[in-house]
Amino acid sequence: MQPLSGTLTISCPDRKGIVASVTTFLAHHGANILEANQHSDLNDKAFFMRVQFELEGMDLERDAIGPAFAAVAGPFEMRWQLHFSDRPKRMAILVSRLDHCLYDLLLRQKAGELVAAIPLIISNHPDLEPVAANFGIPYFYLPVGKTNRVEQEARIAALVEENRVDVLVLARYMQVLTPFLVQAYPNRIINIHHSFLPAFVGGRPYHQAYERGVKMIGATSHYVTEELDQGPIIAQDVTQVSHRDGVEDLIRKGRDLERLVLARAVRAHLEDRVLTYGHRTIVLE
Amino acid sequence: MQPLSGTLTISCPDRKGIVASVTTFLAHHGANILEANQHSDLNDKAFFMRVQFELEGMDLERDAIGPAFAAVAGPFEMRWQLHFSDRPKRMAILVSRLDHCLYDLLLRQKAGELVAAIPLIISNHPDLEPVAANFGIPYFYLPVGKTNRVEQEARIAALVEENRVDVLVLARYMQVLTPFLVQAYPNRIINIHHSFLPAFVGGRPYHQAYERGVKMIGATSHYVTEELDQGPIIAQDVTQVSHRDGVEDLIRKGRDLERLVLARAVRAHLEDRVLTYGHRTIVLE
Amino acid sequence: MQPLSGTLTISCPDRKGIVASVTTFLAHHGANILEANQHSDLNDKAFFMRVQFELEGMDLERDAIGPAFAAVAGPFEMRWQLHFSDRPKRMAILVSRLDHCLYDLLLRQKAGELVAAIPLIISNHPDLEPVAANFGIPYFYLPVGKTNRVEQEARIAALVEENRVDVLVLARYMQVLTPFLVQAYPNRIINIHHSFLPAFVGGRPYHQAYERGVKMIGATSHYVTEELDQGPIIAQDVTQVSHRDGVEDLIRKGRDLERLVLARAVRAHLEDRVLTYGHRTIVLE
Amino acid sequence: MQPLSGTLTISCPDRKGIVASVTTFLAHHGANILEANQHSDLNDKAFFMRVQFELEGMDLERDAIGPAFAAVAGPFEMRWQLHFSDRPKRMAILVSRLDHCLYDLLLRQKAGELVAAIPLIISNHPDLEPVAANFGIPYFYLPVGKTNRVEQEARIAALVEENRVDVLVLARYMQVLTPFLVQAYPNRIINIHHSFLPAFVGGRPYHQAYERGVKMIGATSHYVTEELDQGPIIAQDVTQVSHRDGVEDLIRKGRDLERLVLARAVRAHLEDRVLTYGHRTIVLE
Repeated sequence: MQPLSGTLTISCPDRKGIVASVTTFLAHHGANILEANQHSDLNDKAFFMRVQFELEGMDLERDAIGPAFAAVAGPFEMRWQLHFSDRPKRMAILVSRLDHCLYDLLLRQKAGELVAAIPLIISNHPDLEPVAANFGIPYFYLPVGKTNRVEQEARIAALVEENRVDVLVLARYMQVLTPFLVQAYPNRIINIHHSFLPAFVGGRPYHQAYERGVKMIGATSHYVTEELDQGPIIAQDVTQVSHRDGVEDLIRKGRDLERLVLARAVRAHLEDRVLTYGHRTIVLE
Repeated sequence: MQPLSGTLTISCPDRKGIVASVTTFLAHHGANILEANQHSDLNDKAFFMRVQFELEGMDLERDAIGPAFAAVAGPFEMRWQLHFSDRPKRMAILVSRLDHCLYDLLLRQKAGELVAAIPLIISNHPDLEPVAANFGIPYFYLPVGKTNRVEQEARIAALVEENRVDVLVLARYMQVLTPFLVQAYPNRIINIHHSFLPAFVGGRPYHQAYERGVKMIGATSHYVTEELDQGPIIAQDVTQVSHRDGVEDLIRKGRDLERLVLARAVRAHLEDRVLTYGHRTIVLE
Repeated sequence: MQPLSGTLTISCPDRKGIVASVTTFLAHHGANILEANQHSDLNDKAFFMRVQFELEGMDLERDAIGPAFAAVAGPFEMRWQLHFSDRPKRMAILVSRLDHCLYDLLLRQKAGELVAAIPLIISNHPDLEPVAANFGIPYFYLPVGKTNRVEQEARIAALVEENRVDVLVLARYMQVLTPFLVQAYPNRIINIHHSFLPAFVGGRPYHQAYERGVKMIGATSHYVTEELDQGPIIAQDVTQVSHRDGVEDLIRKGRDLERLVLARAVRAHLEDRVLTYGHRTIVLE
Repeated sequence: MQPLSGTLTISCPDRKGIVASVTTFLAHHGANILEANQHSDLNDKAFFMRVQFELEGMDLERDAIGPAFAAVAGPFEMRWQLHFSDRPKRMAILVSRLDHCLYDLLLRQKAGELVAAIPLIISNHPDLEPVAANFGIPYFYLPVGKTNRVEQEARIAALVEENRVDVLVLARYMQVLTPFLVQAYPNRIINIHHSFLPAFVGGRPYHQAYERGVKMIGATSHYVTEELDQGPIIAQDVTQVSHRDGVEDLIRKGRDLERLVLARAVRAHLEDRVLTYGHRTIVLE
């Protein structure tokens, strides 16, 4: 059993004394540190930290921790967040017709690998409703075409709000989101692209890879930004292919990559391990 | 000790009976097959084969094998080549200032991993002459600038001819060859590019990778064609990086990739395992 | 659509003319070769081949191919098998309580990655019946303890016979089979062991790995023989771990390995790519 | 240019306030932290830390830092060490006849990847003296047989003392050290074993791997302890092999693994990133 814990994530300009101040604050209030990671970007003089600590034994009520920490954060100009382990993030999954990433996320959540509530699944196709039903999750079929994109995304946004969703996962959702949705959830929409970005941006990357004759294919999970496939990369992986592999083989081998890479990125996000910095990520693990 | 062997490489339109004809020819003349690989591209109806056979026990003199095989090859419209294991390829290495790929190739050749003669090393800088001297290989310092590119490449071509060079290896040779040299040695110039192509074409790929915030870096070995970094890919590999890795770390980690990937490509080429097909390769191993 | 095809697998002492004889037989009867792989073990003078050919265009009925080939096989003392692509293998899956490998196999079969019929799932626990039900596959709960091992395995054997099962897959089935079952299905029972064999034979390999402080963990899929975890290895893979990973993390990371490695082995077996040779395998792909 | 820095490594029982105390000490004396890593083993209540800090700007002379820190370390029962970046470790390399790991270490040191002085190379064979000469390093040929093991190791120990050696690297040194040497340098002798330990302990691991029919081979770098191949593992890696690979191929492929794994372990040791804990390591990177 994991103990009840809080997790602080911090970004700020780098200077002397940050780690001392944060850890002294925690020690002063009786917190036991379970895990701490920090990173200093020496070029840009930027500092990043994630610290997870037990609540038991602290002399502060959980609601008092944030306000007390604000006094530490202020002088360092920290951007910071505080999460508690008994309030798992709420994750919406968006899919189209392919089921492999959806099944993978649902099974990992069931196995406890991904600690999240999944209040809903949204799709522009009806096909995967039975999968959702198997796992007892409400499924919203919201078809989308050239004429109703605005309405469909408004409907998605409304569902996200109603369900107090923290993070949207595009599990092979085959639609490009408009700036409306993207801007509404910065660093909270995770996509899986089926190539080793920045190679093979856009559509049909396995076909592109086949044409180019590469000897490895990849998958990339990233936060969605307005520019297609250009968002901060969270995780990537590749696998060997050869002249014996046709496009269908690339698609088959790629499914394993997509599953693994998306799950790794989602897990890191759910555990508050991903900090963004310009168009890059710091993954503190 | 490897037995004395011949290696036939074959490309032709795919149709029934090719393997039967080639292997019956060999069996008929008493050849023992040591290794045979073939590939049929079912989309393009193209066939590729590499077959290595012992010379001992054959009823043909080695000089008679090719002419006899021509009668088999004709009806199938085969493009074919025949090499003998006691006539290793002659390899020229081109370098600039970085020594890691050069050392790697020389040490592998010395260890017997790369079976080739290395009659010369050519460079546009004098720096690596001592390395060449250590291994007892003539070193030609041919500086190149904006005004003497044509003359310098003519000099390279002359050295290649004089030394009966079969294959040119650009071991971090930091010059873009002109069409003159490229066209003279199709599928006989091997380059190592320090990225996972087609990502990060052109100059300073590690800097590009750092800027983009990728989580893996790669290296690609390919035949040189007129279009920069677009030639048929022979080998690729990648390694994991993280936010902790600055450009200097990418360069350091990349050196290992470059060594391994270039050596793998050169070895495959020297063993006649690489057939090209459009801008793709078939690597028969 | 894959064309209707036959697949011949062949093992025999190595000598001149084997490939020529096999491929000439096929060419003579009008067969188009889709894929051919062969391997000569030069130490032991042993030869292995897998050749897949289209049935359309042949001048032999499918039932006549085997008898006709027997005349080729005889003089070379070949052990051989012939399978047809429209008669997929029948696979029984044995499980205990862990569901990750079971789900993985069922989803891959549904996606067409594993071409097999799955007439039944057998378990010594009732837990995974709902998974079987979801996929519409009969589930047989056969509890086993110290006193009924013989009866339980007899029951398994009976189910295997009734359902004309070709291959048994132990998808984290946590029982050691007795020689009775093992001997009945040589090279037809595939297990996944959650370590990089031969490291960490036997029980609780992740705990053993943690204790030893290894920096990578692995998974191994192999044919079951009478000696525990000593059968011919079909596939293996590993992943990096660190001091930050406790036993629970090794188990979690290991699940991905187990899935991938078992699926790879099962797929190779179903496609008749695995030939055994002593306690080793030849995987022709 | 790296700034002048100090590196503290710390092991102690885990309790509240350790990180705060260490980082407050540094902040109080004006030290800028360049990199800090820590690990809490929650099972064993053990704490490990490595912190690297700039010397410039501190209000303590470098010789005063240790004594001042001792006051912090005492109450926490810390075992700790302090190193300075301008006093690189002194490394002795022991070899027998194989040159690939030796060349690799020497080239990496020359390239600045391994920051160490290499005052001497010791061998039980004369073969690699020319390599040492190329790099301008004294070479001591100390033959060893059944009758002079004690004398030879006494000679090694004397050379180690004379040259103020910090770490001994066995770069394919094909002798088992006696307890005399092993006990004299705990966690200061690094070996490369050419298997994925604990698989294939002892002699001829590639032959063992070939016999067992594994599908991957590995290499392991570890600290030497009295029990053969049982010391704390620092780094491991593997590569794919197949039925096509004979023992010679395993040896060839293994050389690349040995080079990479040994270099990774040596680099981590030289940068004070390896803490040992029972028979396991914490590698803080």
